[in-house]
Amino acid sequence: MQRVGFMTRVAPEHMEEYIERHRAVWPEMQEALRRSGWGNYTLFIADDGTLFGYVETPDGLADAQQAMAAEEVNARWQASVQHLFSGIGDSNPDESFVELQEVFHIE
Amino acid sequence: MQRVGFMTRVAPEHMEEYIERHRAVWPEMQEALRRSGWGNYTLFIADDGTLFGYVETPDGLADAQQAMAAEEVNARWQASVQHLFSGIGDSNPDESFVELQEVFHIE
Repeated sequence: MQRVGFMTRVAPEHMEEYIERHRAVWPEMQEALRRSGWGNYTLFIADDGTLFGYVETPDGLADAQQAMAAEEVNARWQASVQHLFSGIGDSNPDESFVELQEVFHIE
Repeated sequence: MQRVGFMTRVAPEHMEEYIERHRAVWPEMQEALRRSGWGNYTLFIADDGTLFGYVETPDGLADAQQAMAAEEVNARWQASVQHLFSGIGDSNPDESFVELQEVFHIE
């Protein structure tokens, strides 16, 4: 199992919609995440739209992203939230994740 | 148990020293963290010095911080790393943590 931290940015003017959408993530999207090894996965947001993700996954972020890329529901989900992000151009939001360096851990 | 995400900022010019210090957090500091309910605690850093923390703790961040404030070793640790942070004035680094809003979670 690897711990992963990543960040991206939600457009401040769309934060409310982003939060609303994530209160009701489609059940089939949640199932795809679980199937793809996204465990103990939490998203946090700051007042300025900075989004921080924490996930525990067997083989690291790149593998977990690849597994999701193979899920049909992921393309639909990413397209449906694409407009809520800031500075990601035409990328899928989940391709904009910037992986962070782990500097400390205790159990 | 509550999941907490928080952020603060390390001075970019001190990132290397910050990372080095956190490779060797004093054992008595680690024991104090455990005793104070800092579980599955990880710190991540971005290239610009943005620091993200993830912690699982029984009663939330404020209680976990209060418990650490009562640990003698914490004052010594915080004083020894205070100069590495950015824009926190005379505060202890652990008083500069800005708690983030959880917007999504799956197990």
